[in-house]
Amino acid sequence: MDNKETYSLQEAILYSHKMAQLTKAIWKAIEKDWQDWVKPFDLNLNEHHVLWIAYHLKGATISEVSKFGVMHVSTAFNFSKKLEQRGLLTFSKKEDDKRNTYVKLTDQGVKLFEETMEAHDSERNSVMNASLPLKSIYGRFPEFQDLESIVKHLYGDEYLEILDRSLKSLSEETRS
Amino acid sequence: MDNKETYSLQEAILYSHKMAQLTKAIWKAIEKDWQDWVKPFDLNLNEHHVLWIAYHLKGATISEVSKFGVMHVSTAFNFSKKLEQRGLLTFSKKEDDKRNTYVKLTDQGVKLFEETMEAHDSERNSVMNASLPLKSIYGRFPEFQDLESIVKHLYGDEYLEILDRSLKSLSEETRS
Repeated sequence: MDNKETYSLQEAILYSHKMAQLTKAIWKAIEKDWQDWVKPFDLNLNEHHVLWIAYHLKGATISEVSKFGVMHVSTAFNFSKKLEQRGLLTFSKKEDDKRNTYVKLTDQGVKLFEETMEAHDSERNSVMNASLPLKSIYGRFPEFQDLESIVKHLYGDEYLEILDRSLKSLSEETRS
Repeated sequence: MDNKETYSLQEAILYSHKMAQLTKAIWKAIEKDWQDWVKPFDLNLNEHHVLWIAYHLKGATISEVSKFGVMHVSTAFNFSKKLEQRGLLTFSKKEDDKRNTYVKLTDQGVKLFEETMEAHDSERNSVMNASLPLKSIYGRFPEFQDLESIVKHLYGDEYLEILDRSLKSLSEETRS
């Protein structure tokens, strides 16, 4: 595909700038809320994200943690190692797949993760609160299919498949 | 407004998780491209963002840099200080407004910033490339009015006003 033909330099720069400003603003707000939420459990955002992924994917490879957690493989490994040292997860290999390292939460890891979820307070979630005016217009939270499409082209189908698995698991957990 | 009535816990958690995963994924891709872009000029992303804001706002207060750059006031100040030491910007106070510190690019700062803009290569901008399939469907890049609404409720009208000023200035610069 010859992309050059399909946009002007001006369009490209204006679009890039707008996307940078909007996603930086929203991600930084989410990051701050997430840090405040998990700090009382002596966890940082990345450690909690590793727990999250291992919990909802019922075990995951370091490569899945890296991909879905949007962190370097070495970062995913190092934070997993710290969690292992605290007895919250274990490393393992599968008989039929010696190349990949799997992480799986211990009972203690599951317990801690579930405690963090119980402590989550949606009323202190600033992005969710800032989305309520849209919800009252649409009758539901926005779905951001355009963002999904961009993420799919950035990270491949696999990213959205993992997101789906994670959302499905989350939805089963919270159904009760 | 009694927000409690307007959403279920499940909806809230699913929505928050999805937003966290999508905005983290997109922001991290933008962050990486931005760093790669400005590194040859011996600048980091935050320093370039300060230059960007001071350039397009034709001078800005540290508080505006902090707000629009989505960084702490102390971070905005420290990076501005580094740029001042390199002779790229100057600090000043206005006669009629002694409380605020203004930053303004020097001729050298303007020159360096314009060189970075000339070196920007849209073809290596991964988020823009990942948005081209949407552009070919819609005939234009997506506008993300829902994200704008969320940002407005997170950071106030002022954020979008500065974004508008910045986009207008950018659009004048690139018109030629």
